[in-house]
Amino acid sequence: MNDIHSTCEWGKGERWGDGETETGMSRLSLSDTDKQARDWFAETTTSLGCTVHTDAMGNQFAIRPGLDNDQPPTYAGSHLDTQPTGGRYDGILGVTAAVEMLKTFNDNWIETSYPVGVVNWTNEEGARFPMSMVSSGVWAESVPLEKAHNLKSVIPANDTATMKSELERIGYLGSVPASYKSTPMAAHFELHIEQGPILEAENRRIGVVQGVQAYKWFTVTVKGRDSHTGATSFQHRADALLTASKMILASHKIASRHKALASTGILTLKPGSTNTVPGFVQFSLDIRSPLDETVEAVEKDCKTAFSAIAAGENAEGVNDDCHPSDRSCNVEWRTDFVNPATHFHKDCISCVQQAGSDLCGGDEVSGKDIGAWGKLMTSGAGHDSVYTNKHCPTSMIFVPCRDGVSHNPAEYSTPEQCGDGANVLMGAVLRYDKL
Amino acid sequence: MNDIHSTCEWGKGERWGDGETETGMSRLSLSDTDKQARDWFAETTTSLGCTVHTDAMGNQFAIRPGLDNDQPPTYAGSHLDTQPTGGRYDGILGVTAAVEMLKTFNDNWIETSYPVGVVNWTNEEGARFPMSMVSSGVWAESVPLEKAHNLKSVIPANDTATMKSELERIGYLGSVPASYKSTPMAAHFELHIEQGPILEAENRRIGVVQGVQAYKWFTVTVKGRDSHTGATSFQHRADALLTASKMILASHKIASRHKALASTGILTLKPGSTNTVPGFVQFSLDIRSPLDETVEAVEKDCKTAFSAIAAGENAEGVNDDCHPSDRSCNVEWRTDFVNPATHFHKDCISCVQQAGSDLCGGDEVSGKDIGAWGKLMTSGAGHDSVYTNKHCPTSMIFVPCRDGVSHNPAEYSTPEQCGDGANVLMGAVLRYDKL
Ligand SMILES: NC(=O)NCCC(=O)O
Ligand SMILES: NC(=O)NCCC(=O)O
Repeated sequence: MNDIHSTCEWGKGERWGDGETETGMSRLSLSDTDKQARDWFAETTTSLGCTVHTDAMGNQFAIRPGLDNDQPPTYAGSHLDTQPTGGRYDGILGVTAAVEMLKTFNDNWIETSYPVGVVNWTNEEGARFPMSMVSSGVWAESVPLEKAHNLKSVIPANDTATMKSELERIGYLGSVPASYKSTPMAAHFELHIEQGPILEAENRRIGVVQGVQAYKWFTVTVKGRDSHTGATSFQHRADALLTASKMILASHKIASRHKALASTGILTLKPGSTNTVPGFVQFSLDIRSPLDETVEAVEKDCKTAFSAIAAGENAEGVNDDCHPSDRSCNVEWRTDFVNPATHFHKDCISCVQQAGSDLCGGDEVSGKDIGAWGKLMTSGAGHDSVYTNKHCPTSMIFVPCRDGVSHNPAEYSTPEQCGDGANVLMGAVLRYDKL
Repeated sequence: MNDIHSTCEWGKGERWGDGETETGMSRLSLSDTDKQARDWFAETTTSLGCTVHTDAMGNQFAIRPGLDNDQPPTYAGSHLDTQPTGGRYDGILGVTAAVEMLKTFNDNWIETSYPVGVVNWTNEEGARFPMSMVSSGVWAESVPLEKAHNLKSVIPANDTATMKSELERIGYLGSVPASYKSTPMAAHFELHIEQGPILEAENRRIGVVQGVQAYKWFTVTVKGRDSHTGATSFQHRADALLTASKMILASHKIASRHKALASTGILTLKPGSTNTVPGFVQFSLDIRSPLDETVEAVEKDCKTAFSAIAAGENAEGVNDDCHPSDRSCNVEWRTDFVNPATHFHKDCISCVQQAGSDLCGGDEVSGKDIGAWGKLMTSGAGHDSVYTNKHCPTSMIFVPCRDGVSHNPAEYSTPEQCGDGANVLMGAVLRYDKL
């Protein structure tokens, strides 16, 4: 808890309560405060006896030797970047708990059979550079290095920075190639807050995670015509914002029907004047479902509906009672990110399950008494474990967070919940090391 | 035309055609380029024999003496600021035509009975400082000086400038009080492009304007809760952007029903991340109708509908087929600007009508053969003439603009149309001077 709160001095966000540590976080990837957190990570793990290296995506790997160092390390880790209005636990808990594991090993003279590693992945959130888990993606060779390096910041205020320019600026463009070949892993375990309400509702202390739902990110551009709000009748308008509003509503209706999720988190428009009908709108669309085919179906339905809406036709009922227009808008889609459904490795899942039972026994571990993978948890959010799972056995540990809230300053897990997670993380790593 | 195009070098906007002058304008009020245009105005009118003064809102008044200078001048004028993506005619035509009038008087040794003035009003557009016609509003003592001075820029990019700080910065915070008492006017005539399609459709060269429709500007704030797009079910969300989208759509339906206009030109949100459901949205709402009571009715219906939508209830059908949510958003309204319907002075209207007939005879002047005010034109857009009309007889002259397009780089009137307008402006001023 000390590491969480002391490192959260770097990038402090909005206050949500009166307590000293009751503020959120705003530590965007590769910002000055992210550099401070990285420096802390490198210094701390070095002082705990690790060898630390940084790859070409700024991923930091700290390795503690084992008895036999001919095998790759078993890793624990997560990320230290946050949302612009994020909390103190998302990602941060996973890294600090992994560092705590190193301390516990040292304090207790624990020697592992093989090396153990701790990793801090770069820009997991995708909040500043709009591709989540991009750096574990490059490590997995799923995302080309150049594409990742060229990603531009989506935070306005004249920010034309790219990932590469920011890595250079803060001194974290490492010399080691970003690849599972250069930094191999025996396994990857990630402790994370659930970011949803299930564990809390079911009174479980530990969630055993079997996989991650599928998601796709798009940028939708709507082009109409700038015109005067007072002198242009509805009939003569090509109103890009009204059209985008209808699309956002339609995407919500379509996702509701498919029991999937569709969300818009970014919307920008031009020119941005009270008395000018906007001729240009761009918005993000994030579609998710545990099933790949459902994500595809929602995408397909949205494409059909958006085209109809842009053309002024009715779709999803959003044009009912609207004044018709003689002019239409134009709509374009760009796919920014595709993340198919992920299924973690059974050996890792079982290490987490056993470590969970060791801690709190039977009922308080999700999926404990069920045996079938189907009843384990599926993460709604993406994590770097999605990419490590492509090249090494992987699983995750969830702990409850208050009210299921995340990506919000008020995100909160109790010290006991954090401690439970750290215990199970260490237990899972030790079990895998023996395996 | 030379003055239009040479002064439009300051604040050049987007290109819309291949010709040298086929670019729009982006000359926001009190910007560096607005200062260049103001310097030109002061130098040119001084060199034409005028005495020039600037008031505390940066309004510039150039006065050409008449035979008897005990009476206040008859003014012609408009504004030199533009929309962020505006054109070369809105406002600019009215000022350059008034300057052309001074040249024509000088070239032809014309002496007027009383003084004649030319005025450049500050921030007519309300595009940078969100209150249109604010400086003629202060002149009319309808808007308090302090309120106007404290208006903050709505253009992002760290712009915390106020009207007062920007007036000081560019050296146009004049020493003369901004008031009709300090700068009295005998009458005010304003030439403007129509900004609508009627004159073009009816093949009329001149529009005689009897008044301006009513409008009100609001800022609507929707507060929900930041949450994770992947881990938060629709049921647990308080999605401020989805809610705002429904409100924008509802305002359009309500205005359609009342045969009024409702438009949103600005929308900002927080935090602005692809995977965070926005907890905060703010948008502008511009409601217009020729009838004050219709503007009130649309406002009332929107207030009722927005409250229902924020609470998750259905209004205007926008919640049909939407997944219900356990959480509601909060909605707040702020009134930024109120502009009741304006009816110009019959003496001025008749000067414009007669000058129009002198130029092009019968049918090509709107309202020419009708006699009843009701068939004259009503401006959809607000103009500084709205405020001058409160303290001196006022009317306006419209000329056609291509396709009715305005607040758009491609806004266009032919040199002949501009010339027609300038002729009628001068004719109306001379007739009023005689009157
Ligand atoms: N855990 C988390 O918030 N990851 C960000 C990627 C996502 O959007 O799911
Ligand atoms: N003429 C003009 O565009 N004026 C701006 C004020 C308005 O929004 O009507």
